[in-house]
Amino acid sequence: MRVDVISKRMLPSDLEPITAVDGAVRVLDQTRLPHEVVRVSLESLFDAAEAIRAMQVRGAPLIGVTAAYGMALAMQSVPSDESLAAATATLLATRPTGVNLHRVVMRLRGVLADAAPADRAVQAFAEADRLRDQDISTNRAIGDHGLPLLRQIASSKDGPVQVLTHCNAGILATAGYGTATAPMYRALEEGLPLHVWVDETRPRNQGASLTAWELGKAGIPHTVIVDNAGGHLMQRGLVDLCIVGTDRTLVSGDVCNKIGTYLKALAAHDNGVPFYAAVPGLSIDWEATDPNAVPIEERDGDEVAEIAGVRLVPDGTPTANYGFDVTPARLVTGLITERGICAASEDGLRGLYPEVEP
Amino acid sequence: MRVDVISKRMLPSDLEPITAVDGAVRVLDQTRLPHEVVRVSLESLFDAAEAIRAMQVRGAPLIGVTAAYGMALAMQSVPSDESLAAATATLLATRPTGVNLHRVVMRLRGVLADAAPADRAVQAFAEADRLRDQDISTNRAIGDHGLPLLRQIASSKDGPVQVLTHCNAGILATAGYGTATAPMYRALEEGLPLHVWVDETRPRNQGASLTAWELGKAGIPHTVIVDNAGGHLMQRGLVDLCIVGTDRTLVSGDVCNKIGTYLKALAAHDNGVPFYAAVPGLSIDWEATDPNAVPIEERDGDEVAEIAGVRLVPDGTPTANYGFDVTPARLVTGLITERGICAASEDGLRGLYPEVEP
Repeated sequence: MRVDVISKRMLPSDLEPITAVDGAVRVLDQTRLPHEVVRVSLESLFDAAEAIRAMQVRGAPLIGVTAAYGMALAMQSVPSDESLAAATATLLATRPTGVNLHRVVMRLRGVLADAAPADRAVQAFAEADRLRDQDISTNRAIGDHGLPLLRQIASSKDGPVQVLTHCNAGILATAGYGTATAPMYRALEEGLPLHVWVDETRPRNQGASLTAWELGKAGIPHTVIVDNAGGHLMQRGLVDLCIVGTDRTLVSGDVCNKIGTYLKALAAHDNGVPFYAAVPGLSIDWEATDPNAVPIEERDGDEVAEIAGVRLVPDGTPTANYGFDVTPARLVTGLITERGICAASEDGLRGLYPEVEP
Repeated sequence: MRVDVISKRMLPSDLEPITAVDGAVRVLDQTRLPHEVVRVSLESLFDAAEAIRAMQVRGAPLIGVTAAYGMALAMQSVPSDESLAAATATLLATRPTGVNLHRVVMRLRGVLADAAPADRAVQAFAEADRLRDQDISTNRAIGDHGLPLLRQIASSKDGPVQVLTHCNAGILATAGYGTATAPMYRALEEGLPLHVWVDETRPRNQGASLTAWELGKAGIPHTVIVDNAGGHLMQRGLVDLCIVGTDRTLVSGDVCNKIGTYLKALAAHDNGVPFYAAVPGLSIDWEATDPNAVPIEERDGDEVAEIAGVRLVPDGTPTANYGFDVTPARLVTGLITERGICAASEDGLRGLYPEVEP
């Protein structure tokens, strides 16, 4: 019942980031938000890969789900072994940092390689649907596990629980509910007083354009700030809790997420503000322990130099555009997973996922 | 001789932020940079106050110098006691955080109150000229004292000295040379290999539009990055040294500077990167020891919500716009003053300025 209420409130049709009905895949074009709500059809593997590359869809979980449908679209077109290999390579080449993409694509490749070509399209769509549904239920569980953190703060203070988040780890980064936002949506359901500080998240402004948009749609009070401001807010006691998402959490508990996350974690640590990452199991990289070995995507410098077509820097000025950073586990209070909250450590993660072979 | 060389290279006429010749005061309109180089005349007290308020001139030292000329323009118009009181009040109301403005205005008020009205305009212009010249020589001395820091790094590594700076504490923030940039300009003179990471500095992008512009004019290699990126660069060993400016350094050694400075200081501390503030004596607040009591300017939220007229957030989204933060002294490796480098502490500062009464 609660699920239905949440569904109704949290997933109005214009907030559904991806839909797939009878093989017709459509995504919300997130490059047009917040000013235009436009859905585009993904007709082919190429469309899916391009939607990921151009960030019409973004967020590690949603990239994973979109990639699964990309595999399905490839099989719908040509279900051969060559097509399967090409689809795998094409999708893996789109974005390097998030681990969900890699895991989803490799999983589908394995499943489909074992299937007869004639069955592959149906199997791939079924698997993609399953991944999408799993993402939604994972995030709902993250919300359930994160909610007590907010409830506890609410019970110990007057005024709203003040949460700071970075980038968009919301509904729009997933198939639904979001990861970092899931506890916030659950708090809304429970009627907890809540206010969210939204980092604008340069250079692509996912906070200003996406998180603000979805929180506004959901009716959660929020304020957009520049990425520079969070430290000052924490110094002045205006943040009770930070919750961020992740593109890849190392088995060591180090959290790779949107560039700038590390700076907020430092500020939280310095001011005694709890700092949590919302981590779906699918975003855990069980192989990786070296934070310096995480491939950090470097994107086009024009994303820094220009905004909405307006050039911010003098002509000819060099720019650099690193997409992600890694927050060391020592700065992370805990990881909110679909199985509960654990310490940001290998012991913590393995305790929740004992079935993963070391 | 060296001074002449620097003057020629560092202060080409289009880089002079303020000029005053025979009572004609002109400033570079920094809101038009980097795409248009426009000088505007300040004809009155009101023009000077408005130039400060609208940030045609900005940077604590340049605000101080402009305010001094604002007092002079007021006296040129009406040299009465009432005019003096009104000019004082008008200028003090423009910007709250930087301490130079307050100190300069109060100093001029004292000098002029003791003068006969008929002499006030001449005295005020002379005093303003003196402050301007003093600012330039102060900054040149900061450059001399900071240079060995860069020289030492250059001698211990291959490749350029990698400096990170935040906002614009450059020529454009002063009457000349800049504060944080002064050691960089000196390093350029010395032929040290140098590369500067320039934080774009949201919301007003002073790094992207001003620091990049002046470093480009001077021929110092630099790269503009988003404010989120500095922590990652430090984690990956790509920053040797941070140098920032200050709007008000407390006698305790806490450094109030552009919002976001604190986050970079945290990252520097976490990665063992030396973090220096360039602090002219005039920017030291000898009265203040409580960082939470520093008045932090809150500016119009539209500076966050819009850029060059393009709205970044959904319509109706609340924004907050804190202009400055305070970096605790414990995160500051040292203060580079015109009298030498000292620890970021009351002992350090009082050791360099023994004439200031405790």
